[in-house]
Amino acid sequence: MDFPYPCLMFLADVDRVSAKTALGVAYWRPDACVGQLRLPGCEVDLGLSDMTPGAAKAAGARSLLIGVANAGGFIPPHWEAVLIEALEAGLDLVSGLHTRLASLPRVRETAERLGRRLFEAREPDPRFIVVGEGVKRDGQRLLTVGTDCAVGKMYAALAITKDLKARGVSADFRATGQTGIFIAGSGAPIDAIVSDFVAGAAEVLSPAAHPDHWDVIEGQGSLFHPAYAGVSLGLLHGSQPDALVVCHDATRAAIDGLESFPTPSLAEAIELNLRHARLTNPAARVVGVCVNTSRLSPEAAADYLRDVAAQLGIPCCDPVRTGVAAIVDGLVAA
Amino acid sequence: MDFPYPCLMFLADVDRVSAKTALGVAYWRPDACVGQLRLPGCEVDLGLSDMTPGAAKAAGARSLLIGVANAGGFIPPHWEAVLIEALEAGLDLVSGLHTRLASLPRVRETAERLGRRLFEAREPDPRFIVVGEGVKRDGQRLLTVGTDCAVGKMYAALAITKDLKARGVSADFRATGQTGIFIAGSGAPIDAIVSDFVAGAAEVLSPAAHPDHWDVIEGQGSLFHPAYAGVSLGLLHGSQPDALVVCHDATRAAIDGLESFPTPSLAEAIELNLRHARLTNPAARVVGVCVNTSRLSPEAAADYLRDVAAQLGIPCCDPVRTGVAAIVDGLVAA
Repeated sequence: MDFPYPCLMFLADVDRVSAKTALGVAYWRPDACVGQLRLPGCEVDLGLSDMTPGAAKAAGARSLLIGVANAGGFIPPHWEAVLIEALEAGLDLVSGLHTRLASLPRVRETAERLGRRLFEAREPDPRFIVVGEGVKRDGQRLLTVGTDCAVGKMYAALAITKDLKARGVSADFRATGQTGIFIAGSGAPIDAIVSDFVAGAAEVLSPAAHPDHWDVIEGQGSLFHPAYAGVSLGLLHGSQPDALVVCHDATRAAIDGLESFPTPSLAEAIELNLRHARLTNPAARVVGVCVNTSRLSPEAAADYLRDVAAQLGIPCCDPVRTGVAAIVDGLVAA
Repeated sequence: MDFPYPCLMFLADVDRVSAKTALGVAYWRPDACVGQLRLPGCEVDLGLSDMTPGAAKAAGARSLLIGVANAGGFIPPHWEAVLIEALEAGLDLVSGLHTRLASLPRVRETAERLGRRLFEAREPDPRFIVVGEGVKRDGQRLLTVGTDCAVGKMYAALAITKDLKARGVSADFRATGQTGIFIAGSGAPIDAIVSDFVAGAAEVLSPAAHPDHWDVIEGQGSLFHPAYAGVSLGLLHGSQPDALVVCHDATRAAIDGLESFPTPSLAEAIELNLRHARLTNPAARVVGVCVNTSRLSPEAAADYLRDVAAQLGIPCCDPVRTGVAAIVDGLVAA
């Protein structure tokens, strides 16, 4: 998808977890954002200028991008006035939510009347609507998996791809969620695909490649998440990863928003992901751990990463704080 | 859904596995079928009279039902002439495939012109489009799970429901696939639901109930199936089963259509299903095994069932050959 960047990032009234789309795009594609638009109650600041749609248009914006990843992926009624204002100011709309922009009559009619475009990143391309076959494909694949949602699986995959490319290794980041698709410009919105076709979509997303090429696939959800584990398992089977990187948030004790479900230990997450991965790739192995330590002091973070690496005997990084060189060293050496 | 029965069962050119919809409806709802329509190459005979759509209409049929469960759930072009002929003969159409009848221009136009109705059992009701919450609900739940697709999970669930009701226990069969929905007249087409919402749909399908009530939920796929395991896991988490019944085909050595994937042992299927089930219901237990022994002699079948029961220490039945009284005895006693 050729998204009309730069955009005005619409943060609405999000908390930090549901702002992950805005935070991710602003971090990985700073070139794509000219400003932010926040509603009362918004708990997040991207550090960009606050702008009206009109001011953003004057500053060069081509679109308003909904930077929200809320549970259920819905568009609440009180956002609609902003969407209409953006269209009237001359901006296209970009969304990755389950609710389609085109399903909102006023938004659709305004866009049609003004000749604006509606981009829906969670509308799967028909080529992803296929049943998985489980046939091993050439090329190397790495999948990031997690102890929970929103623990850094996309950051880890992007950082590993960037590091591989910097070393001259042929590598592609394969996006599977709205944020990743906004950053990469393509991908499979795996959690928006009809469940029968999730593994098949993952197979199509990462096609056969040269034996030395790495596809680095963004994971989704967690096998331990009571709502989303099925998404994670279909993606795991279809991806047929040779290498898994397990992602975790150092300060997350329970599944986000579901306090009665504790996050699993890293050892448990490694064991269960490997067990399922080996159904479609008996050679699957875990090559590292990526931890979001953003809520720890620098000293506590360094201790945490060192302790995990020592306990599990594999590299442990924070993609933002330390980079992922230790994990990529192992990949390249193997 | 109030399906227009009786129907003319359309078998097309199926083999035995993809005929499971026709076989299931004919077995559980013989009142719903007046005849069958087969194309050259069809490997299945329901024992009903072969009829043209016109003859079926004259015999009292109100619809033509597509009795096929093919991988991908598609409608091949060469079936379209039969669908048009049925509409012209005065029959409505009933389908549970992923391809929607209304997506075929000639079918849609003919139905509109003649005032016929198109029933799509795999079109999910909007009430199923919700994110799972993992909150324990009142009432008892039994879920049938399997070592593969098409091993008898629906038959087991229907037989258990029937036996519970015969004993005066409050019980509902909860359909999750097209065949079950055709038989029961309602349900959630779980494999046609966007993956993010599978566990949520399972929660809605089996709502809170009286503590003595049993919901008997039809399982889908298998945790060991490289294409469909994610569907199975989401359904397992959302169903929160108190009781699991593991289903198997006595003569199935490999996953249907995927010869390089061996079917798991029953012990393995029990262990992995219990492990995942306990995420949302720590009290989950396996209460029995149901085996399709239709390809074994009566003596070999009896030996097989006795051996499995002895090895695993739980009742083992063939719902068609022996009934499921041994499993229901345990449920009622507990």
